[in-house]
This record gives sequence, structure tokens and C-alpha cells, in this order.
Amino acid sequence: MTAERWEQYASDAFQNLFREVQRFTRYVYILHLLSWDQETYMPPGGTEARARQISTLASLVHQEASSPRIGELLAQAEADAQAQGWPPDSDGMGFLREFRRRYDRMTKVPVEWVRAFTQLTSEAQVAWRQAKAESNFARFAPYLKRIVDMKREYAQFFAPYDHIYDPLLDEFEPGMKTAEVQAVFDRLREVQVPLIQTIRERPQVSDEVLYRPFPVDKQRAFVREVLAHIGFDFHRGRVDESAHPFTTSFSINDVRLTIRTAERDFFRQALYSGLHEMGHGLYVQGVDPAYEETPLMGGASLGVHESQSRLWENLVGRSRAFVHWLLPRLQAAFPGTIDDVDVETLYRAINRVEPSYIRIEADEVTYNLHIMLRFELEVALLEGRLQVEDLPQAWNERMQAYLGLTPPDDAHGVLQDIHWSQGALGYFPTYTLGNVMSVQIWERMAQDIPDVDAKMQAGQFQDVLAWLQEHVYRPGAKFPPKDLLRRVTGQALNPEPYLAYLRRKFGEIYGF
Amino acid sequence: MTAERWEQYASDAFQNLFREVQRFTRYVYILHLLSWDQETYMPPGGTEARARQISTLASLVHQEASSPRIGELLAQAEADAQAQGWPPDSDGMGFLREFRRRYDRMTKVPVEWVRAFTQLTSEAQVAWRQAKAESNFARFAPYLKRIVDMKREYAQFFAPYDHIYDPLLDEFEPGMKTAEVQAVFDRLREVQVPLIQTIRERPQVSDEVLYRPFPVDKQRAFVREVLAHIGFDFHRGRVDESAHPFTTSFSINDVRLTIRTAERDFFRQALYSGLHEMGHGLYVQGVDPAYEETPLMGGASLGVHESQSRLWENLVGRSRAFVHWLLPRLQAAFPGTIDDVDVETLYRAINRVEPSYIRIEADEVTYNLHIMLRFELEVALLEGRLQVEDLPQAWNERMQAYLGLTPPDDAHGVLQDIHWSQGALGYFPTYTLGNVMSVQIWERMAQDIPDVDAKMQAGQFQDVLAWLQEHVYRPGAKFPPKDLLRRVTGQALNPEPYLAYLRRKFGEIYGF
Repeated sequence: MTAERWEQYASDAFQNLFREVQRFTRYVYILHLLSWDQETYMPPGGTEARARQISTLASLVHQEASSPRIGELLAQAEADAQAQGWPPDSDGMGFLREFRRRYDRMTKVPVEWVRAFTQLTSEAQVAWRQAKAESNFARFAPYLKRIVDMKREYAQFFAPYDHIYDPLLDEFEPGMKTAEVQAVFDRLREVQVPLIQTIRERPQVSDEVLYRPFPVDKQRAFVREVLAHIGFDFHRGRVDESAHPFTTSFSINDVRLTIRTAERDFFRQALYSGLHEMGHGLYVQGVDPAYEETPLMGGASLGVHESQSRLWENLVGRSRAFVHWLLPRLQAAFPGTIDDVDVETLYRAINRVEPSYIRIEADEVTYNLHIMLRFELEVALLEGRLQVEDLPQAWNERMQAYLGLTPPDDAHGVLQDIHWSQGALGYFPTYTLGNVMSVQIWERMAQDIPDVDAKMQAGQFQDVLAWLQEHVYRPGAKFPPKDLLRRVTGQALNPEPYLAYLRRKFGEIYGF
Repeated sequence: MTAERWEQYASDAFQNLFREVQRFTRYVYILHLLSWDQETYMPPGGTEARARQISTLASLVHQEASSPRIGELLAQAEADAQAQGWPPDSDGMGFLREFRRRYDRMTKVPVEWVRAFTQLTSEAQVAWRQAKAESNFARFAPYLKRIVDMKREYAQFFAPYDHIYDPLLDEFEPGMKTAEVQAVFDRLREVQVPLIQTIRERPQVSDEVLYRPFPVDKQRAFVREVLAHIGFDFHRGRVDESAHPFTTSFSINDVRLTIRTAERDFFRQALYSGLHEMGHGLYVQGVDPAYEETPLMGGASLGVHESQSRLWENLVGRSRAFVHWLLPRLQAAFPGTIDDVDVETLYRAINRVEPSYIRIEADEVTYNLHIMLRFELEVALLEGRLQVEDLPQAWNERMQAYLGLTPPDDAHGVLQDIHWSQGALGYFPTYTLGNVMSVQIWERMAQDIPDVDAKMQAGQFQDVLAWLQEHVYRPGAKFPPKDLLRRVTGQALNPEPYLAYLRRKFGEIYGF
């Protein structure tokens, strides 16, 4: 059946291209397995051999996927599609559009640049680790300087552009422009900075309950039980553990999440990390099975993916309705641990707002400010308005302006994230775009499922999941993210629903 | 340092060949990971995608490793080696010899044959599973018939040969001839069949203690503790679980064993399986680090590998000295479970001899008879003296002659093993060759470590391991198995030490 969906396209070039893409997409999935094993089970001794295996296979994929023969097949298939008038929203056109985007990205960047950048970021990650351990920005600065220089070069491969940051952003959020992000972020900042100030002036809620001891074996079992109940398909997926939670997949039918477990930090590291990664996992498991081994399998963009992890983590997991359902189950699974806790106490604890230095510990209200800060600094570096040596000061000034805090040292400030050392400039904004989209999507869904709160309180998640599968997950990467958002919500990207949600939710919790 | 070992060979062809081999050997290790994950953690939904990934990458390896360019480099490197007079026992010559063997094996067999055989065995495995479940040999027979026919064709690709079975055997035990195996097996049969008869007439020992309940979590911890104590390096390896225990590796520094756990079958499935697989694992971990990513990494042959799994499982693990060391540790780890058991009781229990239908449950005395039976039937099938349809009867007649048993049905007889459905004819003899070699190697070692029993009783395994590393493991596949055996023991393959060991050990246990 799946094969027939693709066989209907009467173009030899397309059929040949399709088979080639399937073949090397298998190598991509194998690369995912190599990385998954590295993060979960690989013994330390395996590190060097694994790095060679990944590097060798990644080279092969790049070589095969960017070959002139593939380019010729692609051009011929596009010509056939036009001549035959394939419908714009057909699978075939989605395949050609998404693969063209990837092919151009691979072939516009010279192999020498890729090799030099891979070498640079490999050294930069080592330097970053040392710099962070010593809280010594000067050790990392020369590497970051070269990374910024190379990213400026990189942008030129995609000239002309409206803004030098556009090609960086486009890698992670296809079609998104720097100016659009700036407009959305300006509006978020305008509301969120004073909102944080207001909350700070209100009596703080207690989150003591979150740091009680929960036996790790039972944490593992409980998280799996919750995820299975919600609808993560363990026949087609797993939950393991790693130092940093992540989601990966080797097939639509083999989706791997990870969590962390720490006896005194159950909620953040295991349960809510689990709900977050589950959001990514449900997305992959829900993609049209016909998109297996095609570029359409991966989801529309990082931002859309993040909208789903945030939706399940925050809009479901941190809702009062969910806590109603969750609490008795927690009390049964961990007898004697939180018998004294009621729904309101737990609901407030998991929604406590407290500005902190560290992005990955941030709550729903402060999180976007961490992202904005990084986005603004990245743009300033790319524009040449900011020099790398001035970055720590610029970081700290913005932390003070947005969150009223000054980091005690650079390890808790500008050095906290690995992303820049990996060369991932343009990536951070997708986190906030995900937040913004998550509420737009949720509110559209709530029109179709008006009793969604009652359903969640009763532990009935199947309608929510089915709606998201139909509207968001099933199309995979068939539509560009902006098109998908408009198809799903009828709207363009819009920060207002997210801001209204924040004011409503936290106004009620903090009483303003 | 490792690189210098290979850079000393002043042949461009060799250096190019070496780099090419390293590159595609990485793909082989990646294939091992794909299979390891499939057997350990992969969710059931991943099956189809995984099969495609393995098949695609295996094709790539075959294509690259058997390419004419590789053949030209190999021929030129061999010519350079001869012209430059490389020493016969140098790493370079070992590399060329072992790679030549593999290259010829790949290129002498036509791609069409490989494709047809892969297809056939894939279908045959499905048929075998059904046939075994229904205990219906007729369902499997047509597939086995075609497998035998194709294996007869396969032998022709390696003509001339002394015996049609030689090319099959040679795949797993390089240089071994059917006539040699027959001579060794004839002698084993002559002694072991009456030995079993003698034991049967003696009072049976009790093994009730083996089937007491041992909590599986503690089994896992205990096996890891024993393996770590003996010297399996968990920095460079892991122990996981799978339906059938196995050992694989993705590097000399990343060696993965598996065991099974069942509350009521701790000794066989977890502890002694663990010791067995550890023997394979210690071998890989002990290979010269310079052989990483070369054909020399894999060990000398399946028979030599099996000699090491058997050595640690039986000559160490089932020795009285080991039980002396083991018992108090077992009693401490499983309080209240075997407090009433003494060393003699446990020693006899783990060495109980009892003819059974099933090879993988067989003890040290009866095991070789299971192998002989299979070897004789394989040879008769290849020679055309036996027809597939007559196989069940031939099987049952031999079971009666060797072990005094008639299987209740074919599921417990001719259908019990997966090997034939996988096309692995010529593989079984290596199990018995391993047994025979294990005692030859052990006795040579005992000349250098005369107090080996006292050392084992005191839990000191480092001298045994160091001796094996130096003499057996470090050379990897540098020498053909027969040469290695002679270098290690000063002898050719010889069944007498193994037979003397059996008579001594079991004469004492059963009192004859």
C-alpha cells in the first residue's frame, strides 16, 4: 500500500531518485543508532572507535546525497512533476520540495568548508568543556571567534539574503526570517519582562514537594506507565537513560526517548523530561507511514517539533486537569512520599516561577527570555556589532535587564550551553517559536475538543493525541512550517495566544 | 604507536589497501551494532526497518570489500611484500594472508549465488520456525533440500578440494580438512560413547540446588561482579540480556556480552552463560590494539574462539577450585538460598551428566556427541549418501546409538537448531574442536602456572588471564588456527588430553 502511494508518480527520474534517497536515508537512521548507543549504553572505551564509525558513515551519506547524479535526477524529476502537473499538496511535490531544500543546502556549501568547520567545532567542544569547567571564557573565545567568522562565510554561500542571520535560521526553521523572529520576540519581551517583575513582587509558592526522595526504580516504571497511558507506543519505541534527555528515531516504528533519574529530582529530570521527549516521540510515531525512509519523515521543523514537546510537557503536563489525574497515581506509586500533598500544592509547585541563571532549569515564564538573550547576541555577532571578547559583558547586562540577575561566573552565564561550540548558531530561536506555536495549536484544537480539560482530568488523552496526529503529525515535513501552521490554525505565527495563556495561568497562580 | 606499526611497511599498495580495509571494517562493526541492538533493546516495531538497514549496509560492505580495485591493491601489496622480504610472522604478512583468504572467499562466489542464497535462507528461517513450532519436518524439508543443493554448488566455487565438505568447513575453521575432523571425532566417539554408558550405570548426582529461586536483579549484579573480578574490562565492555546469549564487538575497546535471566535457572542461563560469553569477550579485549579495524581483530577461528569460551566456562568455571571460591560469594549474595550447600554438592550439581535431546542443554561429556551427529549428517548430505527426507530417521538412529535416547518429536530432534536454516553448514564441528583445543591449551598453561588450582581457589585469575592474553589472544588472527595451536601448545590438534580430562574428572565424580 505504502509503495503504491509513491509508484503513482509516472517519472523514471523520480522513481530512481526515490530509491536512492531511501537507500541513503537508511544510513542516516544508522547514524542515529550510533549516537543513541553512544549516549545510553556505550562503555567509555568505545569512544574513539565510535567517533571514527560516525565520521566515516557521515562522510558516505554526504558524498552520496550530494552527488551530481542525485542532482540530475532531482532536476529531471522536478521537470517531470511540472510537465505532469502534480498537485502542489501531493506527497510527490512535498518530497521534491523538501529534498531540494536539503540538496541545495548540502551542495551550496563547499566540501572544504564543511571539513574545516567539522574540525573546528570538534576542537571547540573540547575547549568549551575546559572553559566551562574552569569558568574561563578566554579559553573558549578564540574558537567562538573562528566559528562566528566561518558562519559569516557560510551565510555568503546562500546570498542574496535579507539578513546575514537568515541562512543560519533557515537551516533549523525553513522559511523563517530574522525580521519575523525579531518582531515576535520584541512583543514577547514587552510583555514577559514586566510579567516576571510582577510575579517577583507576589508571595512565592513552595515547590518543596518536588525535591522529596523518589526511588529511581519506581521513577522509571512510573514514567513508562504515564507515557504508555497517554499513548506513546512502546511496541514502536523505548525509554532509556542518558546524561541529557533526547529523542531520536531509526524508523517511524522505532522511536527512542531518554530521561534522567535522580532520587531528589524526580519531577524535572524524569517525569517532565519524559513528557517533553514524549511530545517529540509522539510526533515521529504519528507521521504518515508512507514517509518512512524519505525526507518527509522528520517533522516540519525544529520549531514545530518543539511546539509538540512543549505542548505535552506544559499545556498538558503542567495543567491543573493533568495534576488532578496525576496526583492519586503518584500517591499510589510512591506510598508515604506525598500523601500529604493536594492538587493545588502540586500544581503550584510544578508551575513555580523563579528567574535563574540556567536556561534548562527555567520555568514557562522566564524561558523565552533566556532564548531572546541568545538570539540577540547571535544576531549582533553575525552583524559585527558585537565582538566575541565583549560577549560575557553583553550576556550579563541582558541577564540583569531581563531577569534581574547577574551570573556569579561565566560557567553559569555565557558558557552554560554546548550549542555554540557545536556551531549551532540559529538554533536557539526554535525553542521559543515552539512555545508560541504550541498555544496557537492548542487553542485551535480546543475548538474541536471543547471539554479537553474534563477529558484530561479523567485521564482520557486519546482525542488530543488523535487530533494532533491528524493535523500536525501525519503530514511530517510535507508542508513548510509556516504553511503547516496556517493549515492547522488558520493563522500566521502570532505571540498573542501564548502571552494571554501566560497572563491567565500565572495571574491565577500568583494572584494578580 | 599503533599507526607506526603499520607505517613501517614501505608499499604504497599496502598502505592504500590498509586504509580501505579500515574504512569498510568500520561498516562491519556498525553491522554488529545493528544486530546487537536488534537482539537486546530494539522494540518489536523496529524489525522491518532494521532488516532493510542491515541488508543495505551489508551490500555496501560486500561491494566495497570485493571490488576489483581492492583486488589490485592486494595483489600489488603481496608482490611488494615478497620483493621486500617481509618476515612470515610479521603483522603485515598476517594482514595480507588473512585478507587474501577473505577476499578470495568473497570474490570466488558469484554475486547471483549470494543473492539467491540470502533470499533462500531468509525464507528457510521462517519455514524452520513454523516447522519447529508444529514439529513438522516436512514443512522445512524443501528449504533444507535447496540449501544442501546450493551448498554443493558453493563447494564447486572452491574446487579442487579433497572433500566436498572442506570448503564449508574452511569458512569457519580456516585450513581444517574434513578428514582431520573425522579422525578426531572417531577417536572421541570411541571413548565418549562407552564413557556415557559407564556414567549412566552409576548413581546419579543431584542438581536440585541449581533450580532454587535466585532473584533476577541479584543475578545480574552477581554475574557482573564475577566477570569484573576475573578480569572482563567493563570500561571496554558491557553485559546485557537477550533471548540467546552471544558476544559481539564494535571495537577491541567495546565488547558486548549477553546473558539470560530466569529466576529458577540461574546457573545455566546467567552464570555459566556469562562465563562462556566472557571467554569470547576476554579474547577480543586481549587482541593486540594495533589490530583494531583490520581482519586480524577477530580471533584465529571459530574453533579457537570456542576453546576460550569453553575454557572459562568449564575448565575454570566448573572446576572444584573455582567452586571453592564461588560458593561463599554466592551465599553472601543470595542469603538464605544455598546456606545448606557445601562445595562438593555444588561441584557435583554443576557437573551432572545426563544425556538429553537438546544440544544447548548438554553437559561436558555428552556435548560432543550432539556435534558429531550433526557433522556426520552434514557430510552425508553433502556427499549425497543421505537424502533430506531421510534425515529425521538418521538423526533419531544416531541419538539412540550415541546417547541412548529417541527424541519424542522432531522439534526436540532434527528441528532443534536454527543453524541449517541460516545456511551454516560446516559450523557445528567448531564447537567440538573448541573443546578439544581448550584442554590442550590449558595443560600447556598449567606447565607455566603449576599452582593454578590454588590460585583459582583463592580467586586469583590474573595469571591465567595474562598467560592466555600473551599466547592466545594478543595475536588475533595473525596466524592460521593450526599454526597458532602449535605455537601455543607445541602440538597439532589432539583429542587425547580432552579425553583424559573427561575420564579423570567424571571418573572421580561418578566413582569409576
